[in-house]
Amino acid sequence: MKTNASKIFKLAGAEAVLTEAQDLRQYLTGLSTTFGYVLTDKDGTVFYTDSRYIEGATKALKDSDISVRIYENPPEKLLSKYREVAIPVGRTLYGDYEKLKSAGLKIVDSLPSFTSAMSVKEDYELAYIKEACKIADKAFVDLLGQIKEGMSENDVAAHLEFLMRKYGASGTSFDTIVAFGENSSVPHHETSLRKLRFGDIILIDFGCKFGGYCSDCTRTMLFGDDKKHGDFKSAYEKVLKAHMVAKENITDGVTGMQADAFARDCLKKYGLDKYFTHSLGHGIGINIHEFPRLSPKSTDVLVNRMVFSDEPGVYLEGEYGIRIEDSIMLENGKVVSLTDSDKKLIIL
Amino acid sequence: MKTNASKIFKLAGAEAVLTEAQDLRQYLTGLSTTFGYVLTDKDGTVFYTDSRYIEGATKALKDSDISVRIYENPPEKLLSKYREVAIPVGRTLYGDYEKLKSAGLKIVDSLPSFTSAMSVKEDYELAYIKEACKIADKAFVDLLGQIKEGMSENDVAAHLEFLMRKYGASGTSFDTIVAFGENSSVPHHETSLRKLRFGDIILIDFGCKFGGYCSDCTRTMLFGDDKKHGDFKSAYEKVLKAHMVAKENITDGVTGMQADAFARDCLKKYGLDKYFTHSLGHGIGINIHEFPRLSPKSTDVLVNRMVFSDEPGVYLEGEYGIRIEDSIMLENGKVVSLTDSDKKLIIL
Repeated sequence: MKTNASKIFKLAGAEAVLTEAQDLRQYLTGLSTTFGYVLTDKDGTVFYTDSRYIEGATKALKDSDISVRIYENPPEKLLSKYREVAIPVGRTLYGDYEKLKSAGLKIVDSLPSFTSAMSVKEDYELAYIKEACKIADKAFVDLLGQIKEGMSENDVAAHLEFLMRKYGASGTSFDTIVAFGENSSVPHHETSLRKLRFGDIILIDFGCKFGGYCSDCTRTMLFGDDKKHGDFKSAYEKVLKAHMVAKENITDGVTGMQADAFARDCLKKYGLDKYFTHSLGHGIGINIHEFPRLSPKSTDVLVNRMVFSDEPGVYLEGEYGIRIEDSIMLENGKVVSLTDSDKKLIIL
Repeated sequence: MKTNASKIFKLAGAEAVLTEAQDLRQYLTGLSTTFGYVLTDKDGTVFYTDSRYIEGATKALKDSDISVRIYENPPEKLLSKYREVAIPVGRTLYGDYEKLKSAGLKIVDSLPSFTSAMSVKEDYELAYIKEACKIADKAFVDLLGQIKEGMSENDVAAHLEFLMRKYGASGTSFDTIVAFGENSSVPHHETSLRKLRFGDIILIDFGCKFGGYCSDCTRTMLFGDDKKHGDFKSAYEKVLKAHMVAKENITDGVTGMQADAFARDCLKKYGLDKYFTHSLGHGIGINIHEFPRLSPKSTDVLVNRMVFSDEPGVYLEGEYGIRIEDSIMLENGKVVSLTDSDKKLIIL
């Protein structure tokens, strides 16, 4: 079985490729580990790790082009036979860089190779992401029937995370955000013990992992309609419109800034753009935030087989916040929703 | 309210202290955020963050010695009025270091100050860790009644994580490890869909977060006793002995290598030390792994108010693994267990 190690070796174009960063290591080996180095040269790839992972890694990689060895030496010692080495410079600690440099090695940057390879997904990667999205959708729909007055934000997060696990997720892809009422106006609210009351807004931003890949989705709802929500409902329709306009217009070849502008310009028509205080989206894969960025200044180019989020939002401090987010992918120049539970305003 | 920012400023002894790393930033601000810089000088501390956190951070820090501002400039631009700046060198990316260096700043290393301050816990930190441990203990005891034949490792993890959330945890402190049967011999097994069968060993390594601080605990049990477990049971008693010997002997002033040796020498008497393939323990706090290390080569010195793990284990490849772990603290020269559910062999 050919792993991504040979792909990155070809792209990086150096005598040896040394990779330590956890997510990049996971991309190369397919394994989630907290310690190790991957070293590739023309003769093959070795994954050096410690005793906690050696048995598991050896078993998982036995039919692959990666051999597994116990870690004995720091990476600069492994490199004595090379003149140059590719490392992800922007992800390398100062001390590690200096050690390689003072060992007399020419440093080549492997990060551009990782970024381009990891952002355009292979079939097996898409399959994992789609499954993570399907699990999250299913858990969310089940959760709706379990939300009751008096539950805390934390309780709701507990139920949702349990359901995602039950449907096969290996964990969450980030700390679940559950925000009730006025807490929804903090875009990255820290889930608390605030209890649910009749008439509250509920904002839930959640994701899970499957096969090492992430999903990301946000829904905003009402828990009972106590008639004070006219402004909220009207704003909800506008955020949904912005979300859909981005989906309809994003195509192969647009930049992150063009994508962001589709949604931002739509909100501008309604005078809501000043409340849209973050960017439209981010790439999704092994990491919950990766290349490309969909933001007002991003020159990243969106191409087919990229997966990213479409998440416009508006936040009126102390009043309410609305965010509507799907994980989406580009396929044949069109956006396909990977998370896709109902986006019509839900009133529980 | 005085935050840790002033403590680190004093310890670091530089004109300005700039901190970006997520865990160190959390130590300074008490807030969990994914983006921001903290800058302290003699006039005070500013936390620069983005629109997602600004409302939450401003509210949380309003009575503290930290003011909150929206991030506008990269950190090297904030430093034009200083000649020197302290940064955590060993945690700083090569590019970030170079930017500060080429801005003409003298670089001082703040990491030793963080390491010493963060490893010796304040009362409020101990209170958070104790609560995280109490929640984990309570969830584990409840879980025991829910484990049934045919459940997958993933199902058991889902139930345990739900219970920890229900009892107030904000999430897990690492990916929960549940290993059945032969999977227990992989020290860091990846929780799978393997189903529980009569006679299986169950190894669970789990932790949760409360107030931003971690707990860490491992228990190994039997699901039914099918008489083939003579060797396992005998090894279990020896691992427990090693665990207890470490607890009884660790005192204020011993090194990490002395602590490790208490357990390792005990296993050696039984010829089991060759199966103890990892180190005895690690510091616990905001991070699940931090200073000090308790390992055969560690010269780290253990002192009062440090919190760390005591987790000897033996792993017989393809047969079984045993690990018995508590989060413990040093107080008045004695070890106090913070996780403390029963360590006698449980047979479900």
